[in-house]
Amino acid sequence: MSGCPYFEKRHLLFKNKPPADEDEDASQAGVNKASKGGIIYGDYLQLDKIITAQVLQSEVKGNKIHDEHLFIVTHQAYELWFKQILFELDSVREIFVSGHVRDERNMLKVNTRIHRIVMIFRLLVDQFAVLETMTALDFFDFREYLTPASGFQSLQFRLLENKIGVPDNLRVPYNRRHYRDNFKGQQSEMLLSAEQEPTLLKLVEAWLERTPGLEVDGFNFWEKLRINIYEGLSKERQKTEKMADGEEKEDRKAEQAKQKEIFTSLFDEKHHDHLVSKGERRFSYKALQGALMIYFYREEPRFQVPFQLLTSLMDIDTLMTKWRYNHVCMVHRMIGSKAGTGGSSGYQYLRSTVSDRYKVFVDLFNLATFLVPRHWVPKLNPNVHTFLYTAECCDSSYCSSEESD
Amino acid sequence: MSGCPYFEKRHLLFKNKPPADEDEDASQAGVNKASKGGIIYGDYLQLDKIITAQVLQSEVKGNKIHDEHLFIVTHQAYELWFKQILFELDSVREIFVSGHVRDERNMLKVNTRIHRIVMIFRLLVDQFAVLETMTALDFFDFREYLTPASGFQSLQFRLLENKIGVPDNLRVPYNRRHYRDNFKGQQSEMLLSAEQEPTLLKLVEAWLERTPGLEVDGFNFWEKLRINIYEGLSKERQKTEKMADGEEKEDRKAEQAKQKEIFTSLFDEKHHDHLVSKGERRFSYKALQGALMIYFYREEPRFQVPFQLLTSLMDIDTLMTKWRYNHVCMVHRMIGSKAGTGGSSGYQYLRSTVSDRYKVFVDLFNLATFLVPRHWVPKLNPNVHTFLYTAECCDSSYCSSEESD
Amino acid sequence: MSGCPYFEKRHLLFKNKPPADEDEDASQAGVNKASKGGIIYGDYLQLDKIITAQVLQSEVKGNKIHDEHLFIVTHQAYELWFKQILFELDSVREIFVSGHVRDERNMLKVNTRIHRIVMIFRLLVDQFAVLETMTALDFFDFREYLTPASGFQSLQFRLLENKIGVPDNLRVPYNRRHYRDNFKGQQSEMLLSAEQEPTLLKLVEAWLERTPGLEVDGFNFWEKLRINIYEGLSKERQKTEKMADGEEKEDRKAEQAKQKEIFTSLFDEKHHDHLVSKGERRFSYKALQGALMIYFYREEPRFQVPFQLLTSLMDIDTLMTKWRYNHVCMVHRMIGSKAGTGGSSGYQYLRSTVSDRYKVFVDLFNLATFLVPRHWVPKLNPNVHTFLYTAECCDSSYCSSEESD
Amino acid sequence: MSGCPYFEKRHLLFKNKPPADEDEDASQAGVNKASKGGIIYGDYLQLDKIITAQVLQSEVKGNKIHDEHLFIVTHQAYELWFKQILFELDSVREIFVSGHVRDERNMLKVNTRIHRIVMIFRLLVDQFAVLETMTALDFFDFREYLTPASGFQSLQFRLLENKIGVPDNLRVPYNRRHYRDNFKGQQSEMLLSAEQEPTLLKLVEAWLERTPGLEVDGFNFWEKLRINIYEGLSKERQKTEKMADGEEKEDRKAEQAKQKEIFTSLFDEKHHDHLVSKGERRFSYKALQGALMIYFYREEPRFQVPFQLLTSLMDIDTLMTKWRYNHVCMVHRMIGSKAGTGGSSGYQYLRSTVSDRYKVFVDLFNLATFLVPRHWVPKLNPNVHTFLYTAECCDSSYCSSEESD
Repeated sequence: MSGCPYFEKRHLLFKNKPPADEDEDASQAGVNKASKGGIIYGDYLQLDKIITAQVLQSEVKGNKIHDEHLFIVTHQAYELWFKQILFELDSVREIFVSGHVRDERNMLKVNTRIHRIVMIFRLLVDQFAVLETMTALDFFDFREYLTPASGFQSLQFRLLENKIGVPDNLRVPYNRRHYRDNFKGQQSEMLLSAEQEPTLLKLVEAWLERTPGLEVDGFNFWEKLRINIYEGLSKERQKTEKMADGEEKEDRKAEQAKQKEIFTSLFDEKHHDHLVSKGERRFSYKALQGALMIYFYREEPRFQVPFQLLTSLMDIDTLMTKWRYNHVCMVHRMIGSKAGTGGSSGYQYLRSTVSDRYKVFVDLFNLATFLVPRHWVPKLNPNVHTFLYTAECCDSSYCSSEESD
Repeated sequence: MSGCPYFEKRHLLFKNKPPADEDEDASQAGVNKASKGGIIYGDYLQLDKIITAQVLQSEVKGNKIHDEHLFIVTHQAYELWFKQILFELDSVREIFVSGHVRDERNMLKVNTRIHRIVMIFRLLVDQFAVLETMTALDFFDFREYLTPASGFQSLQFRLLENKIGVPDNLRVPYNRRHYRDNFKGQQSEMLLSAEQEPTLLKLVEAWLERTPGLEVDGFNFWEKLRINIYEGLSKERQKTEKMADGEEKEDRKAEQAKQKEIFTSLFDEKHHDHLVSKGERRFSYKALQGALMIYFYREEPRFQVPFQLLTSLMDIDTLMTKWRYNHVCMVHRMIGSKAGTGGSSGYQYLRSTVSDRYKVFVDLFNLATFLVPRHWVPKLNPNVHTFLYTAECCDSSYCSSEESD
Repeated sequence: MSGCPYFEKRHLLFKNKPPADEDEDASQAGVNKASKGGIIYGDYLQLDKIITAQVLQSEVKGNKIHDEHLFIVTHQAYELWFKQILFELDSVREIFVSGHVRDERNMLKVNTRIHRIVMIFRLLVDQFAVLETMTALDFFDFREYLTPASGFQSLQFRLLENKIGVPDNLRVPYNRRHYRDNFKGQQSEMLLSAEQEPTLLKLVEAWLERTPGLEVDGFNFWEKLRINIYEGLSKERQKTEKMADGEEKEDRKAEQAKQKEIFTSLFDEKHHDHLVSKGERRFSYKALQGALMIYFYREEPRFQVPFQLLTSLMDIDTLMTKWRYNHVCMVHRMIGSKAGTGGSSGYQYLRSTVSDRYKVFVDLFNLATFLVPRHWVPKLNPNVHTFLYTAECCDSSYCSSEESD
Repeated sequence: MSGCPYFEKRHLLFKNKPPADEDEDASQAGVNKASKGGIIYGDYLQLDKIITAQVLQSEVKGNKIHDEHLFIVTHQAYELWFKQILFELDSVREIFVSGHVRDERNMLKVNTRIHRIVMIFRLLVDQFAVLETMTALDFFDFREYLTPASGFQSLQFRLLENKIGVPDNLRVPYNRRHYRDNFKGQQSEMLLSAEQEPTLLKLVEAWLERTPGLEVDGFNFWEKLRINIYEGLSKERQKTEKMADGEEKEDRKAEQAKQKEIFTSLFDEKHHDHLVSKGERRFSYKALQGALMIYFYREEPRFQVPFQLLTSLMDIDTLMTKWRYNHVCMVHRMIGSKAGTGGSSGYQYLRSTVSDRYKVFVDLFNLATFLVPRHWVPKLNPNVHTFLYTAECCDSSYCSSEESD
């Protein structure tokens, strides 16, 4: 049993409390009695901290401006949710890092948590509607008091970007300074370490590289696909050759040449590595293959949940970019084209971050370029079906002692 | 100038700082220099409090359950926003209480802030989608640790209800106990005092009673309306009488009898007071007249903003009730029909609060019953137009010293 | 290969067009040339129908009221989306009816389409915000012209309710008449036939009854669970008996008696059937067992997607009920407590449909009442793991000829 | 009375039907009887058109692809709402064109309808979430059948852009062709005429130019503002001069020089006209002044509703640009970087339209650059207050015969 932490964990629970001996004495009851008094709502949520943390700088400076309260609360709500996102993100990364993801049972957790991040980002995008009830004129009345505080200094947001996998070298510089220069001491170290730890991007990459079916000495998906695609293209070209000369034929030939070029680039590993070095692709060549395999065989039970995961990862990218864009829109309204409170060139800087450079899983989007007709996709044979299924089973060494416990 | 606080306030500002003498010495600059170092983002938002306030009871009790973090953050986000709503609500109540609302210039503030509450509630309704990513099974894993904390103990939510105007005597009892019994000491006093202070309902009522045009010795809207309606009904009845006998005639007569009954009830002050005593109406008779007047003359410049205010008040009621209902739906999913963590009968209790008893501005909805064709509405004459307009002007005693300052 | 329609289908495709012989002649190209002209946007979407279908009755009757246009377009948008929901619903029902759901590969389709219905309902709930820009006074200006048209006559909405599984006998009567009496001829027949066809509820029920692991001569989940629960309850009772006498002990005993009662009812099939006959439960006893099994083993790869399906079914129920409630709120604002345009008692009728009677998958919610600590859940042994996994594999007779094709 | 169309209209109504003579005969009843049979829901909404307009090209071509139905319905829903937006937009433009906007009573209508457009766009932005349930792979299965239909061919969307005021010369070319070349005959003419008719931009511009208080021989806002600002800047500079030398002083001087430059540009009409010629500003110089005046005096009753209008116009711009951006995100997911179905370079083209060039009311955003401390704003004197108020009153020649009717 010791090898199967999942089931061990169940043993720890007795009505969610450690199970006790039969002859457990009544002292245990005392604990319970205490818990009858228990914790109350306000203490549980530490509301003494949460709802006393709104200090208006305008009031401190002797000129209380009503709308600053909204400004503070909105940003605090953003930071609360960033904390939650980081919590989910760290837990997912932990599942990947620890190798627990190899037990397919953990895929539900991974998917649920990634989906939760999606739902939170959806809320955060909507949340701008509240801050937009403040006009530029209301903001002008207190913005001077905020100097030099700026959203650019949100540690959690930078951590979040780093942990998902926004690469340092693709970041837009901020007032010509490195983004980390805006943070000091421990915060700067946290950011650096988040860059150096395995990012979600890197973890998903490694997981994709293990996609069953990629094995060169097994199903060898990539080679099979390459053959099918070239065969397919070749047949199409032959059909075109037989056509009567004319505009239609020329159009087709041009289209087919273009297609051939696209697929040639797909099967050219050096080209891939070149694109990676420029930041236009992010996944390793093998991971790209895994992703495409999941795309094509998404209906296989073994791949249904992985396919959902890939979809959710694109959702996160899309929502982060929508969040950025909504932010840009709000800033435009609040300060026009002037500098932000932190001295940033505000609007222009933010606008430049609404870019595919900041899309971490950009490869998943661009795979849409490499779709092929279903009958070009290599067929699975029963053995491979079986292979895929057993891959889900926790292997015997992992679970064998389960009942011997 | 002393009589015109609005303009006084402007004098206080110099680039949002108190204006200084011409020969202000350089000491002032020191302050500024300090402010150059200024406040940074994390300190401004007191993130040391906000994002360290998540203590999982399950972890404290030695069995950390992942999803409890979401549970905490979601509730904290609700409380943050409740704080903001209370802040807006208090400021609006203050404008009414202080009589500043008589200066029509303050109506923009009132409307903007009430609208902001609407936008926040809209967000809060959507926010359930995030908590719904937690399943009943995830919740079961830690709910026992929360005992006896319960959302029922949210002080801010009860304050909010009280300040808007949910009346004590219409509240659904909770486990057969008065809602205030769940709060102790200072909290209980805050609730009591919020019941006794002027509620938004009462303040809006007083404001509606002052609606220009209601004066019996002036335009006398109510009497004019009564006459027009009875005349209109009478003409319709006469037309019906002339119809050939038949089903159609009978239908019409029945319809008209019903209509007459409705309007008779409208003009019967005793009937009104009876409904008020039962909690079916909330406004005074005069305030009801004011509201209907604003409805009918909403396009008059003087009434456009008041009409928007009435609409926003209905929005708040609607959204609070949707919030309650979404809460009910979530609770049903989380705990089925069992008791809540605080011992409440949970689902059933919450369901009973999704009721018109909790709609504070229910009269504004029900006025839809008393609409009449536009040509039954008493016409304004030019004098009354003028009367309405001048009502907007700050009177001379108020503003006269403005330029003499 | 003939036994595997999924792969056959792929054979039908050649760049999504039937593959042609190598020596296909150039005539084919002609078709293509035509398609080069192809279809344009407006024709494709039949906009000549869609955007010419707004005829204002107020205009027809000689008194054009601006806001009637919004009223028409909003309802048309609702009907468009209802059509889409019915389309998805029918396709899902077809997968179940045809038995294709037994091929686990189809579960992705089922889940995706059910999730799509969820997303559409989410939009429809939000859509009320648009119609709410119309005030009661605007509506009053044209509502008379609509008589006796009423949303109650929406065929598609009734079909949708029927196909999901709102049972005829639990419907709230409408003006004391059967809901189907409002429809004539073909429409009435469509409704009747939708009641008689297998509903989503019935199809899901049958699918749940087949949940692997329920077999009495196999894993026998239900019996194992019953034993574990009674053992668990008994141990807890024994511990309590050993406690010192006092309030705490009495509380515990009361709590445990209540729990015992709950679980006794769970394992009492007759009680279940009684609740079914009253409409308080909807699933067969066996289906209930399947649902609980999926709940408890949701992390098993075999059950991850089924668990998502159950969650989405609750989402649909929740969103339909939210849709109803938002509808109620809007109607309250539009007409107060008066009758609707179709003669319905409007507000009161609609309010009565916001009821658990209309929640089709109410059993899934109420299963939250029967959750138990994780260590009470019967453990799977490796054999059962294997059993569950192979259940996902299409069996050999189904796929064997796949490669011989 | 003849001069007051507003009240005339009321005369036209009798229970929303033309009033009849006292001795109206019973024939009228016949009409009513007919209306008892009346119109039913499905006919009213022309559902025979709306829900039969979904023809799948994939089905026509013999290879029905399920998801095409969603694709069609989503686009039809977009077009339905575009129709509604155009309807509101045309009615608002009509109020401006006819001069009815000079009667302030019409401002409620204008605001309500512009706000309605805002709410519709908000829905349309959310609506992408539904289409996003379709994956790139699902889309690939039928996208070829759509050639050459493309969203670029949406007549209504182009009309909408034109009527709001997207200028022809700032449009991004589409495959190097003029946007209007994609439309033929009548459609092309409609687009041209929509360019030539007064756009919302132009109408709002003319309305802003009439802002009371701008009169050179009256309050002369612009000149007063210029004087105050230069005075204010000068005082600040003098204070700075008195500071001890140092970094702080230099910083301040730099900041003040920058500010001076900004305001100098504001008061330089030639500079303004230059920016207009480049498309960086859109309003006339006078209109810009009016907008800034409304900004500064927004709390004056006379300006509250105009201020809301300016805010809503920014909302429309923001939401249209969010709509464009959400569209871009979806397209990226669906087709990667390949060409769209209509031959457009799809993703890249759409991305280029998410630009301030397409923000019609960009001046309203950029006015945030010219905000000043409240005490720099020229004070109104009582006469101007009065002037502003009486401006709201319908003048006597307009309403005088009102009661003589």
